[in-house]
Amino acid sequence: MRLSHLVTKTKKASGEQDPSRNAALLTKAGYIQRLMSGAYSYLPLGLKVLNNIETIIREEMNALGAQEILMPALQPREIWEKTGRWDKIDVLYTLKGAGDADLALGPTHEEVVTPLLSSFLKSHRDLPAAVYQIQTKYRNEARAKAGLLRGREFRMKDLYSFHLTQDDLDEFYNRTIEAYLNVYRRCGLGDITYLTYATGGAFSKYSHEFQTITSSGEDIIYKLKSTNVAINKELVEDIDALRDIIPDFNGQLADYVDEYRAIEVGNIFKLGTRFSDAFSADVTHADGKNYPLIMGCYGIGSSRIMGTIAEALSDDRGLIWPDEVAPFKVHLVSLCHEEWEIEQANTIYERLIKSGISVLYDDRMDVRAGEKFSDADLLGMPRRVVVSSKTLESNSIEFKPRNDPGALLLTLENLENILLDPT
Amino acid sequence: MRLSHLVTKTKKASGEQDPSRNAALLTKAGYIQRLMSGAYSYLPLGLKVLNNIETIIREEMNALGAQEILMPALQPREIWEKTGRWDKIDVLYTLKGAGDADLALGPTHEEVVTPLLSSFLKSHRDLPAAVYQIQTKYRNEARAKAGLLRGREFRMKDLYSFHLTQDDLDEFYNRTIEAYLNVYRRCGLGDITYLTYATGGAFSKYSHEFQTITSSGEDIIYKLKSTNVAINKELVEDIDALRDIIPDFNGQLADYVDEYRAIEVGNIFKLGTRFSDAFSADVTHADGKNYPLIMGCYGIGSSRIMGTIAEALSDDRGLIWPDEVAPFKVHLVSLCHEEWEIEQANTIYERLIKSGISVLYDDRMDVRAGEKFSDADLLGMPRRVVVSSKTLESNSIEFKPRNDPGALLLTLENLENILLDPT
Repeated sequence: MRLSHLVTKTKKASGEQDPSRNAALLTKAGYIQRLMSGAYSYLPLGLKVLNNIETIIREEMNALGAQEILMPALQPREIWEKTGRWDKIDVLYTLKGAGDADLALGPTHEEVVTPLLSSFLKSHRDLPAAVYQIQTKYRNEARAKAGLLRGREFRMKDLYSFHLTQDDLDEFYNRTIEAYLNVYRRCGLGDITYLTYATGGAFSKYSHEFQTITSSGEDIIYKLKSTNVAINKELVEDIDALRDIIPDFNGQLADYVDEYRAIEVGNIFKLGTRFSDAFSADVTHADGKNYPLIMGCYGIGSSRIMGTIAEALSDDRGLIWPDEVAPFKVHLVSLCHEEWEIEQANTIYERLIKSGISVLYDDRMDVRAGEKFSDADLLGMPRRVVVSSKTLESNSIEFKPRNDPGALLLTLENLENILLDPT
Repeated sequence: MRLSHLVTKTKKASGEQDPSRNAALLTKAGYIQRLMSGAYSYLPLGLKVLNNIETIIREEMNALGAQEILMPALQPREIWEKTGRWDKIDVLYTLKGAGDADLALGPTHEEVVTPLLSSFLKSHRDLPAAVYQIQTKYRNEARAKAGLLRGREFRMKDLYSFHLTQDDLDEFYNRTIEAYLNVYRRCGLGDITYLTYATGGAFSKYSHEFQTITSSGEDIIYKLKSTNVAINKELVEDIDALRDIIPDFNGQLADYVDEYRAIEVGNIFKLGTRFSDAFSADVTHADGKNYPLIMGCYGIGSSRIMGTIAEALSDDRGLIWPDEVAPFKVHLVSLCHEEWEIEQANTIYERLIKSGISVLYDDRMDVRAGEKFSDADLLGMPRRVVVSSKTLESNSIEFKPRNDPGALLLTLENLENILLDPT
């Protein structure tokens, strides 16, 4: 895409009323714009990032054998009364619809998915089953000052699984942990994201979160020195839990863990029969008797991952997008002024596109080199390529990874080889 | 995909409380399920149809040069006050948020997009510009009994364009008409969908709708016998309009038109400066002076198109999906029982997949041939392929288009050739 055609522009200052680093950077770069506290518009480059993250999540969910659906956000009060959560969820948005109907805007979808799947899952032969959606969620947060990290309207993937037995749930739950770790790895957060023990519920001793270490995180986690596993602060007063999780625990927590601030980027729960009991969601087992479905639920906020990447992987100059998440793989800067030079730059742009490489092409004529370079750093594509009269003289192109100070002079052929096989 | 793995099943009856044909058929086939009046879950096959329609729309909008964004559904009261529409739109859902804030759920996005784009479009050099989103919309309809044709929560593409001059708006508006006609053609509705004159507003004599002829349609249109253009009923009392639209009009409407019931599947408006005036959305022209942006808006309901296809293209036996919209290109029915036959059917399935053909594979063991055939008709993939001991004996496969009574016996090679080049 030509930068001269892009409807957004970078801004001198973020103009962002909330103090979060992610919203300030993403606003300044023209990826998002705040409509009100906790609700943002995704602009062309920002929507590409969000879509890339959601594509990664979708691929990993499909690989688990889960099937994608899309449920309504508007939900009748009755289903929330059935589980006793109409009055209990303090972030539930409620509103009046036609015929004086009481409605909620879904912050999560157990109340919708349980009766929905129950209408299809009747026999033990229908199980296990798993469905997910990638959808806009609503939570009436008292404060929403953390940009994309805590939205009132935000994007989320929620997966629900249905099982005959606890063993089958356990097996699926463990496979989901692997799928989640794949998502964070592909989103560039693999090295700083940890499976984290958190408090469980009536149906399991622990639930699990995935926490990404970042200085601005709202949570505190204790990462085990010996393994890539962490413990949420809410559990570290529980000596039984520590004995469970830490091999050979001697009572001195500091011997085993390091403390970090972190952002919760996912959580998974064994729900047991909490929701199938409420909706009489039974299934006939091989013995001919009916038993309630055993359920699990698994959430990832895709917009929160976008905010987390902006918080954790950026530097003083701007954003740094990991390869699979970046809106474009290459930021091509033209410093050409003569007509034949501009033609050369256009040819390089078209040739890279033809090779299947996605390119953001800074073809702007009225912008100086310094501003083009600082925009490239702010926008954060993983690789910058510069074409100028100087590089054209030596029949070469300047190539620089975003997170690497050194630039290389390459031929177009070598550049293509590097771009097509970045490993 | 193997039908034995699909979480949904076809139903004997639709169980659908509302009397619309589209919801009855789509529910019976397991494409959608009603949560409440006007709000449906899209199940795996239904979401594929919706995604295919939205992909077509996206491609046609991108070809216009429009850039995709995503705006919030939650919107502050203030922006609706600015245009005077807070109290005027009777289908506006309103609710209270944290801090006693008055919020609306967006039924349309002029109030969001105008200040958003205005913050980027400052100079005549920034124009023209066009952005669109494909997003979930909310309308508090008093009655919602028409399935996907009139939802309280529904999917819609809304495009907004920004221009320096009326001429430039006119040119873009005319190109949008072509893009819309491409969408309906690719969705299989081209032959029964007409550009339709409707009443305009302060800034243009007429607006335009796109109307699909269907006996269950809510609207009445008058299609010109001489051209593929129609007139909405609301205009036919206006003799000046008839003189405008019908060449050589003699005063006798019946001489020129045929009357049909139809469903409105899109509408486009010239907004002029209605919204840019309200938000002081000015741009500096070449003469150095500021003038308000000149705008157009262009809507297509993607979920309504899905409902319209179900209404208009189905038959007594079920759905009939056009090629680009169908969840799978081929419905492969196995009537095999012997192990070696099942292996043959599996091999055919895998080979078709490898050739890049999307296949729904009815591999169910406990279902009789008659039920498999009626499910194939109900589900409505454009082509049915049958493998049985009889076809395997003659080293062939039975091939039947959904909307064609005749079946052919083909070799696997010939089948692949037909599927890969269906023209």
